[in-house]
Amino acid sequence: MFGHRPNRRRIDPSSYIVRLSNLIGVLVSTFRHLDSHQLEKGKRRRRRSKNLSRSYTFVRIRGLKMEVNKEKYAADLSSIEAARARISSFIHKTPVMTSESLDAISGRKLFFKCECFQKGGAFKFRGACNAIFSLDDQQAAKGVVTHSRFLPFILHMFSFPCYLIGLDLTTFFKISGNHAAALALAAKLRGIPAYVVIPKNAPQCKVRNVVRYGGQVIWSESTMQSREETATKVLQETGAALIHPFNDGRIISGQGTISLELLEQSPQIDTIIVPISGGGLISGVALAAKSINPAIRILAAEPKGANDAAQSKAVGRIVTLTETNTVADGLRAFLGELTWPVVRDLVDDIITVDDTEIIDAMRLCYEILKVAVEPSGAIGLAAVLSDSFRNNPAWKDCNQIGIILSGGNVDLQVLWNSFRK
Amino acid sequence: MFGHRPNRRRIDPSSYIVRLSNLIGVLVSTFRHLDSHQLEKGKRRRRRSKNLSRSYTFVRIRGLKMEVNKEKYAADLSSIEAARARISSFIHKTPVMTSESLDAISGRKLFFKCECFQKGGAFKFRGACNAIFSLDDQQAAKGVVTHSRFLPFILHMFSFPCYLIGLDLTTFFKISGNHAAALALAAKLRGIPAYVVIPKNAPQCKVRNVVRYGGQVIWSESTMQSREETATKVLQETGAALIHPFNDGRIISGQGTISLELLEQSPQIDTIIVPISGGGLISGVALAAKSINPAIRILAAEPKGANDAAQSKAVGRIVTLTETNTVADGLRAFLGELTWPVVRDLVDDIITVDDTEIIDAMRLCYEILKVAVEPSGAIGLAAVLSDSFRNNPAWKDCNQIGIILSGGNVDLQVLWNSFRK
Repeated sequence: MFGHRPNRRRIDPSSYIVRLSNLIGVLVSTFRHLDSHQLEKGKRRRRRSKNLSRSYTFVRIRGLKMEVNKEKYAADLSSIEAARARISSFIHKTPVMTSESLDAISGRKLFFKCECFQKGGAFKFRGACNAIFSLDDQQAAKGVVTHSRFLPFILHMFSFPCYLIGLDLTTFFKISGNHAAALALAAKLRGIPAYVVIPKNAPQCKVRNVVRYGGQVIWSESTMQSREETATKVLQETGAALIHPFNDGRIISGQGTISLELLEQSPQIDTIIVPISGGGLISGVALAAKSINPAIRILAAEPKGANDAAQSKAVGRIVTLTETNTVADGLRAFLGELTWPVVRDLVDDIITVDDTEIIDAMRLCYEILKVAVEPSGAIGLAAVLSDSFRNNPAWKDCNQIGIILSGGNVDLQVLWNSFRK
Repeated sequence: MFGHRPNRRRIDPSSYIVRLSNLIGVLVSTFRHLDSHQLEKGKRRRRRSKNLSRSYTFVRIRGLKMEVNKEKYAADLSSIEAARARISSFIHKTPVMTSESLDAISGRKLFFKCECFQKGGAFKFRGACNAIFSLDDQQAAKGVVTHSRFLPFILHMFSFPCYLIGLDLTTFFKISGNHAAALALAAKLRGIPAYVVIPKNAPQCKVRNVVRYGGQVIWSESTMQSREETATKVLQETGAALIHPFNDGRIISGQGTISLELLEQSPQIDTIIVPISGGGLISGVALAAKSINPAIRILAAEPKGANDAAQSKAVGRIVTLTETNTVADGLRAFLGELTWPVVRDLVDDIITVDDTEIIDAMRLCYEILKVAVEPSGAIGLAAVLSDSFRNNPAWKDCNQIGIILSGGNVDLQVLWNSFRK
């Protein structure tokens, strides 16, 4: 259905360190997927994904090389439409806002899809809701579990060699507070428990959101080991389902419902700009939008300080970074095995912006749109206003642009510190 | 059509100073109305209001006693419906937002009418738009004029005696930046000039808004005398129409369109809480809402530091204050001759809140609703959450409450300072 532009895998042979770190990255990607099941089931199962229903694509893993069936992705229009039917009575149909002032500043017609007004304050609720209402009654009764930064136990064997080459494995798994809060809220709606493992030194606003939505906070020490042990204990004791924030077809399908709404609300849109982190949001948005209208351009907006997706697109495989540095703390995750194929094939380009541009865009959202967005939420506007977008002849005819304001869960203290810089 | 509850005029005889200041207040109220025409026309005309079209109520003035025909107000349902037809293609039909979290906190079902998303960032655009599109072509071609704080020249004769008793006349006329920006924007849509007299020391955000919407900024010195002289000069040179921010039937009718929308969007509403300042907004909202459903309660929310409306309701006549002190800078104006009768007859009660409550409500708007409101905009939520509202048995059955988030034009620096306190 979509035009494929396969990227041949190229490895720059100039640096041994780079090769080694990429090798470890692939190893990590491979085992990460398996290990989540180990945690969930208490022992290693076959490599087939168990927590995905049959309608979703199976990702085959052969040795160190990951191959994905290019004709299929982890979600498609029918799974996204099914998600919409499943969640529509629980979610807000968020409004699309326009601003003549911002149109004048950008030189384009902009349509802001305000997912910051979604329940839980971010788009995450769509995916979480779809995942939770996809569970069968027996599994659902046991509840769901997530924790704020998740590093499978098996990866610890790589910790020391990774540390020697400056690779911090803790950055591989970053599950934002938005997912935890969304999961808690969706679980509350289904009337099942949501266990959220949170380290004692977590930001208060994050804890408040989880508690507000009825999540059961399970405190752990701040070390990764303590969090994992606590999560494992919860999983073993409760039999709850572990729900990944983006590398899950149900999550991707849920996020895709944004496109269905947006293109009904503003059918004239020719381009959609989407924040990219783990890729769950953009995968869903791209799959739905390109299914409805293959001519729509899907552009990702990414912080320069966490540009793993841009690097991945450039070299044709998942690239992970040794560290990330950006004010957009929701955009620090790396692509997963289920999101990467969509990003590779269906995302037309990735626009990277620096933190100053993100803060400026955020300020415009407050001052002109009157919408309280978090930095990750404002990055789409930052991309539209960036020189790299404005001056790129490829995007000259992007005139009717949908921008997804992905979330609004900002700590007001952090907000102020951002503006003051 | 509406139940009238006339309040007899009572003057507390205990204090000479209070009597003197009230006397001066009435004098000021009397001459303020006349003097705006003096400015507009260049010379004093008959006491009949000239800038109101024939469909609006005539306010008779006899000596020092102001009387208003109690069967008629400055606007009615038909003038409000006419306003809607006139402005609907120019304004945003603002969304009504709900939040289960805020419902849980307040113990009621809340419907937030987001006028902060209105063009110009506040409800003011509705009235400004109606006033400007009500002008005949000949008058319109000459443009419109306003300035930020307007003190008629004739009042200067009272300045010295007022100063002796601690009465600052400059607080009598406070026209917020929202009105100036809204007028500029509406004038731009009609293609006519808007002259906004702004003192050189005005806040930058206010100036930016006026310039953004195409208003012609006429700089004056910061003294009241300079502003008036500049405004008079503009009026004489251009023949432009002076448009009052609230004491004008066209403005009141424009603001009333909020009720028409709100009661269509959420017909189950049994109470509407409205910020009160000069009374233009609440007059329009009350006239429209009570015409549609006389059982609807209309409650005003007012800062304790500028509680002239509450005092006015208590004593049955317009009370003005020697000074105001509140973070809600948009709520410092006093009732006008055209808004007072509506407030007196149709507003069921006035709930006063202190600045701490306003800031707390504002924070909830940011953190939960994800809506950037100014302090004046958040006061309706502050009222719902206040003890005086919660504990008042008269409002126990107010279960479906519409709250008007009136505007979002906040200086981010001021915002932060508010939150930090």
